[in-house]
Amino acid sequence: MATRRTVLKAAAALAFPLPDVPVGRRRLRDLGLRLGLLTPGPLGAITDVAGVTVGQTTVADPARKARTGVTVILPRNTLASAPCRAGAAVLNGNGEMTGVMSIRRTGLVDVPILLTGTANVGIAYEAAMSTIFPTRGIAIPPNPVVAECWDALGDIRARHLTAEHVVSALRSATSGPVAEGGAGGGAGMTAYGFKGGIGTSSRVVAANHGGYTVGVLVNANHGTREQLTIAGVPVGRELENLPNERPRSSSSIVMVAATDAPLSSRQLERLALRMAMGLARTGATANTSSGDLMLAFSTAKYGTPALDDERVTPLFQAVVEATEESVLNALALGTDVVGADGSVCPALPLDRVVALLQARRAIT
Amino acid sequence: MATRRTVLKAAAALAFPLPDVPVGRRRLRDLGLRLGLLTPGPLGAITDVAGVTVGQTTVADPARKARTGVTVILPRNTLASAPCRAGAAVLNGNGEMTGVMSIRRTGLVDVPILLTGTANVGIAYEAAMSTIFPTRGIAIPPNPVVAECWDALGDIRARHLTAEHVVSALRSATSGPVAEGGAGGGAGMTAYGFKGGIGTSSRVVAANHGGYTVGVLVNANHGTREQLTIAGVPVGRELENLPNERPRSSSSIVMVAATDAPLSSRQLERLALRMAMGLARTGATANTSSGDLMLAFSTAKYGTPALDDERVTPLFQAVVEATEESVLNALALGTDVVGADGSVCPALPLDRVVALLQARRAIT
Amino acid sequence: MATRRTVLKAAAALAFPLPDVPVGRRRLRDLGLRLGLLTPGPLGAITDVAGVTVGQTTVADPARKARTGVTVILPRNTLASAPCRAGAAVLNGNGEMTGVMSIRRTGLVDVPILLTGTANVGIAYEAAMSTIFPTRGIAIPPNPVVAECWDALGDIRARHLTAEHVVSALRSATSGPVAEGGAGGGAGMTAYGFKGGIGTSSRVVAANHGGYTVGVLVNANHGTREQLTIAGVPVGRELENLPNERPRSSSSIVMVAATDAPLSSRQLERLALRMAMGLARTGATANTSSGDLMLAFSTAKYGTPALDDERVTPLFQAVVEATEESVLNALALGTDVVGADGSVCPALPLDRVVALLQARRAIT
Amino acid sequence: MATRRTVLKAAAALAFPLPDVPVGRRRLRDLGLRLGLLTPGPLGAITDVAGVTVGQTTVADPARKARTGVTVILPRNTLASAPCRAGAAVLNGNGEMTGVMSIRRTGLVDVPILLTGTANVGIAYEAAMSTIFPTRGIAIPPNPVVAECWDALGDIRARHLTAEHVVSALRSATSGPVAEGGAGGGAGMTAYGFKGGIGTSSRVVAANHGGYTVGVLVNANHGTREQLTIAGVPVGRELENLPNERPRSSSSIVMVAATDAPLSSRQLERLALRMAMGLARTGATANTSSGDLMLAFSTAKYGTPALDDERVTPLFQAVVEATEESVLNALALGTDVVGADGSVCPALPLDRVVALLQARRAIT
Repeated sequence: MATRRTVLKAAAALAFPLPDVPVGRRRLRDLGLRLGLLTPGPLGAITDVAGVTVGQTTVADPARKARTGVTVILPRNTLASAPCRAGAAVLNGNGEMTGVMSIRRTGLVDVPILLTGTANVGIAYEAAMSTIFPTRGIAIPPNPVVAECWDALGDIRARHLTAEHVVSALRSATSGPVAEGGAGGGAGMTAYGFKGGIGTSSRVVAANHGGYTVGVLVNANHGTREQLTIAGVPVGRELENLPNERPRSSSSIVMVAATDAPLSSRQLERLALRMAMGLARTGATANTSSGDLMLAFSTAKYGTPALDDERVTPLFQAVVEATEESVLNALALGTDVVGADGSVCPALPLDRVVALLQARRAIT
Repeated sequence: MATRRTVLKAAAALAFPLPDVPVGRRRLRDLGLRLGLLTPGPLGAITDVAGVTVGQTTVADPARKARTGVTVILPRNTLASAPCRAGAAVLNGNGEMTGVMSIRRTGLVDVPILLTGTANVGIAYEAAMSTIFPTRGIAIPPNPVVAECWDALGDIRARHLTAEHVVSALRSATSGPVAEGGAGGGAGMTAYGFKGGIGTSSRVVAANHGGYTVGVLVNANHGTREQLTIAGVPVGRELENLPNERPRSSSSIVMVAATDAPLSSRQLERLALRMAMGLARTGATANTSSGDLMLAFSTAKYGTPALDDERVTPLFQAVVEATEESVLNALALGTDVVGADGSVCPALPLDRVVALLQARRAIT
Repeated sequence: MATRRTVLKAAAALAFPLPDVPVGRRRLRDLGLRLGLLTPGPLGAITDVAGVTVGQTTVADPARKARTGVTVILPRNTLASAPCRAGAAVLNGNGEMTGVMSIRRTGLVDVPILLTGTANVGIAYEAAMSTIFPTRGIAIPPNPVVAECWDALGDIRARHLTAEHVVSALRSATSGPVAEGGAGGGAGMTAYGFKGGIGTSSRVVAANHGGYTVGVLVNANHGTREQLTIAGVPVGRELENLPNERPRSSSSIVMVAATDAPLSSRQLERLALRMAMGLARTGATANTSSGDLMLAFSTAKYGTPALDDERVTPLFQAVVEATEESVLNALALGTDVVGADGSVCPALPLDRVVALLQARRAIT
Repeated sequence: MATRRTVLKAAAALAFPLPDVPVGRRRLRDLGLRLGLLTPGPLGAITDVAGVTVGQTTVADPARKARTGVTVILPRNTLASAPCRAGAAVLNGNGEMTGVMSIRRTGLVDVPILLTGTANVGIAYEAAMSTIFPTRGIAIPPNPVVAECWDALGDIRARHLTAEHVVSALRSATSGPVAEGGAGGGAGMTAYGFKGGIGTSSRVVAANHGGYTVGVLVNANHGTREQLTIAGVPVGRELENLPNERPRSSSSIVMVAATDAPLSSRQLERLALRMAMGLARTGATANTSSGDLMLAFSTAKYGTPALDDERVTPLFQAVVEATEESVLNALALGTDVVGADGSVCPALPLDRVVALLQARRAIT
């Protein structure tokens, strides 16, 4: 069986520049896994879509049992109003994503998108609105998009996230690589019984299909260990000698897609729904208590005519693949975490996973 | 033409005990108007549904250009979790009502329902969650329902509503009569070019249909003056010599229905949608920028088998009528207000309206 | 009280040319009723929208207890494919309107729209497809839109409608006036306890709002007598000495709107939903067993950029008013009918209705 | 490389009794493939759900270029009314499934479910209604559920399906094994560039989860060859030397689930939506022109209280797995077909697929 050291040696170089990579962690792509028909963009991140920026504040302090945070996506790298066409979809609605009614009515999003813990929705909403309201010339205050998962690795009742944390994430959003795993809003998340949280990926469609980029960012807090499937390999069942899976009262995954393709809001709703199909490839079935919520937006210049419907199929392929890989990246970049209740949420054991994938020639 | 005095004299007694009735204001029912096939409950209010309580904090201070507030509905008069079956509907989605995804998934509501101004959503959400979180034995924090309209009669950017205001409304909820017009979350609202805000009404279905009560409470901030129709009379067009209608950047109406009938969540979604039909009777057409959002819940003991679908039609009649009358009550109890911009939002001129209705024999 | 003769004398001239007007029947507009803020187009019919044509086959033969038929709307007066943007909405789904899934996915309709009786759906679908399939150059057969109501005045089990009837309606579609009441698909319908069926109306928005036309055609088979409201007057309750209302196992209304305004499919869905608000003005509450289904399409040149959302509100006003008047026209043009079971479905007693409206000064 | 003979030898015995198994065809499960966490029922078919019956008429006559048919599912093995709770979902709506509005309103299905070719909808609808109408004591004729895919391997314009074919399928429905591949409504279907059509499978949940059965039946006519994924192996890309993939103007998949678990209609809608996740595991992304439609029903005694929401997650796992396997069964039982245009639609080359899966140790 491969050891962690051999795994890392096999990964001679990172395919993408990654910030804040924990020791011993790598994306599975950097360990040889190739998924899907299409190729990622330069960063393998939602920020491959030009103009999209991401800011994160991570609140992780074991002494205070704090493990929460917030991840912000700015569709056009501004706090000011700069509408993007947008669409939302719901796979399982047991969660909150504010702003969706308005997005469905207008087909637009012109606000920051915040991913955070369930108890933080009010704080994040208020902090975001207070921050962006002054930037708006129009009379109407924006309804920010705040989407939550139940970040149970920290002490939720202690309410560790503050307005300052939120403002910091809003103000620090940048293009470039995105920290994954327990970063930002993913700090307290668990997916498939392993440390989950933020993951991101992207795909570029062929030049004759427009050469568009689709980027995805997820906050993964869903699924049970036995469900985890990587490249069709039932990894969750085949991994042995792991700590007991922590019992869960809830689970969720929030998925956000960006594209530079000029899609209509109707097409973006369809793109959003396809993220459920990428999620499905990793073994999920959208458990009953899950808030599995999807949002997609286009950074094309507002007013650009939308693609003909006959041309969107390659973008569906792209978003499915980028979602699948985003979920796996969230797992791959996670680290062992001791939860607020003292139990351990292990990182996905990369060396053993790679060994399983090699045995199945999913990695060659 | 009738003078205000003659109008008030005609109204010898109030049909319902009303709190905080402004001088010279009366519900149109107290002035002789009878709408619909069914009869209201004892209060003509959502609180006719046993167990439902309402709390309101009004923030109205002309010196600070403050005109905002919050109205809270507690479905079972408790901050603790006590699930009610529930359903939501959207007539025009240009607004925010948090918690709807979850209500649609679970078919339940077990949180306070807060009606407030657009800029207050974050504060209200956070204050409500902080207040009710400690009451919950379960691990998961509740997602309160916060629904907003753009309360432009006050200085929205000054953010006058505080967490304390919200907590006060939550803690003061009571059964009994409900203040209407500019009370609570209705403080800064305008409807059909007149002072709008909170209105409530109810209907009781026949004993052979179960004798159930349907109560409605609205926060009316919608419509243009020329649209206003009362009992089919185009009052908005026929009233003359009114101050100019204030220009509006937005409009909305939030409508909440309660019933003691044991309806399924699917039936409650249908009940919610019918509120649009009651609204329509007052002349509204759901203007493009409106957030016209509806929520219905049942206070029947959780687990009671739902009514057979064949038996819900009388409840639809009830909710349509109670909605129509709630909107008119919001107008009838409003008073003249000087907006933050110095322009006047007049109260519905009751005496002249009564005269018009008398001339058309809608009031005899 | 006015006699029928005096009523007809009062109506010195028809405002619109109407085909097949039964003796003694008039639209209420021709008897003095004016509803709404806007003015109808030249015909007061869906055919005021240029290019829209209507064909009808009526099957009414008391000897065979036959009372059924079909009404066809051709959005662009062709059986060939000529896509229109379109949107659908459901008020109460207890009915069938084929093609809606596809309309929702593509945002387009390029097929005839057929309104008929419940038992005729298969025959109408097959006849329509057989007729239009040869006109299509593309490989894919069209899914016609067939929408049904339960036309219980005839003997439904006798299956009186034939493919030839359907083809005849398809091939005879014309612009110009549209027969109302018991014409075409409305032959066997009952509304508010009176003879219902096909009704149509239109509205033109102001020149500074684009001068667009909105036309509506309904097949009205819904509601109970006590619900009927005209111009706010509870006519259904106030009419006396009528034959007993026939018991009903079902009810429905299908509503179709056309406009020459260049609306997006999303905007057309919103237009479709507003038809429920026009329906509400006539007293309906969408009874539990009703199939209350709405479809709207635009005849604007395919590819024309859609109106800005801020400009659609006047079209909402138009569709609400045109729907209200279409329902009343269906009643006004109906005649006394003896149902297959021998019971009488009376026509709306126009003279007495006019007297009631005059007494309330709704007609002056 | 394995030859067909060695493949068949490896499959010493069928796990399930299969009717009409073409020479040389086997389900992949019979060739060693095991997918998912759960175990199929005795037949590995939708008919594992007690009471569900399936009837099929296949119209395949190369001389007339006929390749169409109809597959009928009777939820309770009767043409008479016997309501089942039901729910529907849409992944991509470019198709027709009649009856869905009514199912969504009532939460019930009490009619046969017919899967057929696009041009047959009217004939199938009319034949089904004519057949079942006399069985109904109630006044209202049933709206049968007819769902279509574009069966382009035959000459669609020749309209080869007759009412007699439909009646024959309705009258021949039986429990027991179900013919797959080009049987019934699957005769003219293509999936992932190979012969597709009817496939079915089932799963049984653990006894402590209720021991319920979930059965699925699909009509697979979707996807491109490069998308085909089996057990995570990109079979579609790795198979070489295949005939050129036939160009397609359309594609679709209709998926029907049955269960004996007492689910509410709301829960059945959720079950229906999860079929998209099983489909996703085979590589599909719901291409733009696809009609990917889902329907689920429960055979539990009508009126049985529904399962608590907390207990439905295992049923989601079951339906995802049964859908995945149904799609693969449709491919596995297909045979080489020459289309109406003379081009070849090859069967999935089982021996080579097994070899690929063996090389990846997905079959051991």
